[in-house]
Amino acid sequence: MNARNPKSKLLLGPGPSNADPRVLRALSEPTLGHLDPDFVAIMDETTELLRYVFGTSNEITIPISGTGSAGMETAIVNSLEPGDKAIICIAGVFGERMADVTQRVGATVIRVHAPWGKPVSPDDVRKAVKENPDAKVVGIVHAETSTGVLQPLEEIAQIAHNNGMRMVVDAVTSLGGMEVPVDRLGLDFAFSGTQKCLSCPPGLAPITVGEKALEFIKNRKAKCQSWYFDLSMISRYWGGERFYHHTAPVNMMYAFNEALRIIKEEGWEVRAARHRLNQKALIAGLEAMEMKLVVEPEYRLPSLTTVYFPEGVEDAKARKKLLDEFGIEIGSGLGVFKGKVWRIGLMGTNSTKGSVLTLIAALEDILVSMGAKVPAGAGLQAASAVYRA
Amino acid sequence: MNARNPKSKLLLGPGPSNADPRVLRALSEPTLGHLDPDFVAIMDETTELLRYVFGTSNEITIPISGTGSAGMETAIVNSLEPGDKAIICIAGVFGERMADVTQRVGATVIRVHAPWGKPVSPDDVRKAVKENPDAKVVGIVHAETSTGVLQPLEEIAQIAHNNGMRMVVDAVTSLGGMEVPVDRLGLDFAFSGTQKCLSCPPGLAPITVGEKALEFIKNRKAKCQSWYFDLSMISRYWGGERFYHHTAPVNMMYAFNEALRIIKEEGWEVRAARHRLNQKALIAGLEAMEMKLVVEPEYRLPSLTTVYFPEGVEDAKARKKLLDEFGIEIGSGLGVFKGKVWRIGLMGTNSTKGSVLTLIAALEDILVSMGAKVPAGAGLQAASAVYRA
Repeated sequence: MNARNPKSKLLLGPGPSNADPRVLRALSEPTLGHLDPDFVAIMDETTELLRYVFGTSNEITIPISGTGSAGMETAIVNSLEPGDKAIICIAGVFGERMADVTQRVGATVIRVHAPWGKPVSPDDVRKAVKENPDAKVVGIVHAETSTGVLQPLEEIAQIAHNNGMRMVVDAVTSLGGMEVPVDRLGLDFAFSGTQKCLSCPPGLAPITVGEKALEFIKNRKAKCQSWYFDLSMISRYWGGERFYHHTAPVNMMYAFNEALRIIKEEGWEVRAARHRLNQKALIAGLEAMEMKLVVEPEYRLPSLTTVYFPEGVEDAKARKKLLDEFGIEIGSGLGVFKGKVWRIGLMGTNSTKGSVLTLIAALEDILVSMGAKVPAGAGLQAASAVYRA
Repeated sequence: MNARNPKSKLLLGPGPSNADPRVLRALSEPTLGHLDPDFVAIMDETTELLRYVFGTSNEITIPISGTGSAGMETAIVNSLEPGDKAIICIAGVFGERMADVTQRVGATVIRVHAPWGKPVSPDDVRKAVKENPDAKVVGIVHAETSTGVLQPLEEIAQIAHNNGMRMVVDAVTSLGGMEVPVDRLGLDFAFSGTQKCLSCPPGLAPITVGEKALEFIKNRKAKCQSWYFDLSMISRYWGGERFYHHTAPVNMMYAFNEALRIIKEEGWEVRAARHRLNQKALIAGLEAMEMKLVVEPEYRLPSLTTVYFPEGVEDAKARKKLLDEFGIEIGSGLGVFKGKVWRIGLMGTNSTKGSVLTLIAALEDILVSMGAKVPAGAGLQAASAVYRA
């Protein structure tokens, strides 16, 4: 049997990003029982810290025992009953996924599409809401990881709430890298994953549930179709009652706790500004290398940048060289962007000047070696200039 | 904020058990991308090792990205369609849970009950099968963690298969501590959790799916109601295609890989014998201390022993003393056994002579301090004698 010796790589793709070394160390702390008073104290602190990161005082603000997609399923199965109608905004892979999950609840899905790389139009949502006043939910992906578009959350949440609909928000790629204004916008369900801007390995899905949503959960007619994701039961384990539901992923919880502590120490506003600055430098570098960005400036997601790679460059080969020669991972395009676009993540711990300059330097080397025309040194110069400004 | 410094405790409850130190170290290896070739190699090795532990050559033999209960939900949502009928054997909390999960699929549940602490009667299953020849599934908990009863799996699997029904087996507390004869009995779905006899922290649910079950999955009429647990999609990520489904819990996978390596190194037969021997010593000790066991000898689960604690001893207070003074966790009774019974796990790494003698010594000290009459030294003497025999 070969030794399992994973190398330390720089993960600048769409996630997972690198976990902070403090978080990795926390993972190997000794396992406690899931009802041990010492573990319960860690759970309590974790919910408190998570409320800070989500900008909420929602009681049910907890990690679900699965990855980001488990967060999506939790939000959907708990926000809808069979036969309900839901308006789902689709502007990429993860919007499509939300529609798929929603249909499996036995709900009717009204799709509001946006072209790939563009934001969803609030007018289109307004129209859908008007035509479907009986819809119970409006669902949207805040930060679409397949396109790098930040969606106009505020306007759409307003439309949903003005019409008495619950707002379900996928914040997988935004939470920890920018504001996810749960209380400010009164979002009813927001969920995320640990492996993006929270800088913790994949495995947990933080979720927060508003008061009205909780009321709906308590009064629903049909049992939630998922036992594992049934928030009416999970909340009894996380609440004062500590009623056994399933065995919490204890060591992942240590890591998550540590990741949240790091965010609290930095302060989310400072962290958000850091993500914006480093993306600005990255973009300056890419554009100086004559690469074109996919997304219009006002809709660019600070944590994830989509960029057309130079024509003539072989997609998979270039990314493999980057991984083999520099130990840097970036992401391929998905869907309509497959073979055209790269996805570059600057998430959490990885959103640094060092990541940006390293990547720009490596990209220049590789693109030149593959015959692409790149103005020598222009990328680094432009990126550096942003930090000196 | 308080420091998070979990102490190393001896976890002799119903799980989680202690992870092997090698497994804890593996957790903090650097996170790789979930499609990184180095990670894919680890996935491949992991499925190979898991097949060994499950005693199967089933292609789909993988960890689900959730805890043991996620394994149960995966097995149920993938083995049934709405309107199907399922015979569920119920002999404790986890059988009840299986019935609950099954109902949520929209299936009709035929319940075959056994009294708490007793095995399910194959005759009762035979009767249920005869009365419901249209049932599609027979579900059973191999090792009922709430009672410590090992169920007569072989006979019941035969009844199910003779009548063309799929067999769904919860092996959460058995896998890694005894044989789970997947291929030998042709089990269609078997699932487990990492935190019991596999000696890995909680967070993954190993599952194996037989060929006929896979065929059913491929040909089902309705989409699986769960997106997250849909094996038709998950198997495309684990198969050669590596089709993206959700981001695998990378670091938990390192830990799981290491835990399986440890089992392979020991050999499952040796490991099973070790579990039997240590339980024998534990039982000798408990009985010498004049405590009565719940389960008849032939149905005792090697990894989990249920025992009536002496009358007059305060349940919670005694377990708290054990935890505070000795750092040992044992489990309380559940359901009808609440306040009457303790559950003592000797699982995986924890199934040792050291665990047994330490626990017996600690129990004597605590019971005596709480006024119970315990023959001095008899427990240790009887347990030790088993190892010398």
